[in-house]
Amino acid sequence: MTSSDPPADPSAEPRSATIATIAREVGVSVATVSKVLNGRADVAPETRTKVEASLDRHHYRRRRRRQPTEADRLYLVFHEFDSAWSMEIIRGVEAAASASGIEVVLAQLGGRHRPSDTWLDRMLGRHPLGVLFVACGLTQIQKERMRRQNVPFVAVDTDTATAESVPTVGSNNWNGGLVATRHLLELGHRRIAVISGPQDLLCSRARIAGFRSAHDEAGLTVDPELVRHGDFYLDGGYAEGKALLQLPQPPTAVFAGSDIQAMGVLRAARELGLRIPADLSVVGYDNLPVAAWIEPALTTVHQPLHDMAVTATRMLLDLSAGTDLTTSRIDLGTELVVRDSTARPA
Amino acid sequence: MTSSDPPADPSAEPRSATIATIAREVGVSVATVSKVLNGRADVAPETRTKVEASLDRHHYRRRRRRQPTEADRLYLVFHEFDSAWSMEIIRGVEAAASASGIEVVLAQLGGRHRPSDTWLDRMLGRHPLGVLFVACGLTQIQKERMRRQNVPFVAVDTDTATAESVPTVGSNNWNGGLVATRHLLELGHRRIAVISGPQDLLCSRARIAGFRSAHDEAGLTVDPELVRHGDFYLDGGYAEGKALLQLPQPPTAVFAGSDIQAMGVLRAARELGLRIPADLSVVGYDNLPVAAWIEPALTTVHQPLHDMAVTATRMLLDLSAGTDLTTSRIDLGTELVVRDSTARPA
Repeated sequence: MTSSDPPADPSAEPRSATIATIAREVGVSVATVSKVLNGRADVAPETRTKVEASLDRHHYRRRRRRQPTEADRLYLVFHEFDSAWSMEIIRGVEAAASASGIEVVLAQLGGRHRPSDTWLDRMLGRHPLGVLFVACGLTQIQKERMRRQNVPFVAVDTDTATAESVPTVGSNNWNGGLVATRHLLELGHRRIAVISGPQDLLCSRARIAGFRSAHDEAGLTVDPELVRHGDFYLDGGYAEGKALLQLPQPPTAVFAGSDIQAMGVLRAARELGLRIPADLSVVGYDNLPVAAWIEPALTTVHQPLHDMAVTATRMLLDLSAGTDLTTSRIDLGTELVVRDSTARPA
Repeated sequence: MTSSDPPADPSAEPRSATIATIAREVGVSVATVSKVLNGRADVAPETRTKVEASLDRHHYRRRRRRQPTEADRLYLVFHEFDSAWSMEIIRGVEAAASASGIEVVLAQLGGRHRPSDTWLDRMLGRHPLGVLFVACGLTQIQKERMRRQNVPFVAVDTDTATAESVPTVGSNNWNGGLVATRHLLELGHRRIAVISGPQDLLCSRARIAGFRSAHDEAGLTVDPELVRHGDFYLDGGYAEGKALLQLPQPPTAVFAGSDIQAMGVLRAARELGLRIPADLSVVGYDNLPVAAWIEPALTTVHQPLHDMAVTATRMLLDLSAGTDLTTSRIDLGTELVVRDSTARPA
């Protein structure tokens, strides 16, 4: 028995509608229904709407392999390429995919968070094994189209915000914020700043929540002045770092939102004549290779990007094989890596 | 007139052999010749050899688009993924390909410098638009198979060693060595060390040749003790840097083989209590994003990885469209980017 040959299950829903059923019901040709399913542009809008409504009513799902498919290819789609961070994801996906004889088609959306319908049409026309979305996703209508075509998709997202209905692999941001802050508190710091990512990302909030929880645990309150948001890049760390370090009561430690942002804090600190870690402790986030290369080597929170990519790829392969996922949201653990950028306060 | 429809040229060679000609000559079926062309395994080795010899005698070239092709896909093949360096190449290829509506299939050879025949068979079976090889290549037999299938290929290679017959995009390594060394000489350094990449890479030798040429220009001789080879990573820079800085007469400046290697030299220098650039000047190579992020920001030779990737992709698109290349080897210029890791000697 294969996954394309399900057992006769008495509790199963009645056999789903065929394209012919849909065509009869709407009063169009089978070819027209097929065009709608394939996302072709040469269908009148009102006809498309009627056909789609009928497909939805019948919970139509295309059977796999009825037509030429690229069952040994997956698409890996990025919001944008982000240097070393993206490379860790690419490595993980390529490793897991090639171990299963699967090829990887690479795409990036040039900073947009949703693919265009043109892109989606073309991709669906290929009938790939599935799609991995990294820090990007689909509109509700696009999701429905993917489901109708039976093309599974999985999100790799550090943001805890992704829709329930999309299988997602992330990491435990709250725990990352907690362990970084605990480490600084244990060293004796009492005035600790956090620069997280942009405020509209839930991952930023989750890390700040972890930062607060560590303070709560220690019976300490957080000075709101020390909670900042910046972009994940050098400039964000530099600007917020400079502002924090020039406060009348500057922090003795900064927990940054990324390793690159932490490098911006290091730059701001050095410009102000502060030594790391003697005068200021800095903790990064991600544990990219560069964190171990710089001086001082950066204490940082390891975000398991490679393992997240491997896990997401395996989920996609399971979905494409018809295996039910035991869970649709997996957060991998984050852990602190202590190096040379943190020490007891002076 | 399209590229698949050449003009009647009186000087052209006689019309090339068809599969039927080859089959008649060797005394096998058309299907067998076709199997050999498609790299199928189910052909006896002696038959394959005879068919291939006949194909070579007739300079057989498969016409494009006789069968299902993936004319809007190219393969991007890496020797291995190398963090930020590979990402710069991926960015460039993706940008140039997607601008022409071409998709990118990503592959890496796990550190090997030639793909397996299994991989090649599978890839050729797809009839892609073409293949870009980064720091890897093909055996002579594999090249012939690519040509017979009319699948063009271009190499992106910083190594000046690639075979004449393969269109290649690189960069001017000799010039990189020259401008880096001139800069240090102009600052007043007279005891300058070079750590290049592994000795078996021609790019390493080309940079050392540039280093020597700059000394020649200035009427100075090079102390052989100051010419080193190491891997391109942190450990190579650290080990060679430490050895150089512990010489009885240590150098006052080091020209490294990569930005990452330069970071290893910085680490060795700091461990020995040397300040950068007051006590030691360091020049990197590549100009990866990280070179601008570290402290002190690294003076380095800009290797135009992104532009090399774009150029190689365009060459591949030209080849696949049947356009003759004006040249099969392009080296893009390298230039010095002066930042904060170099200064006059103490």
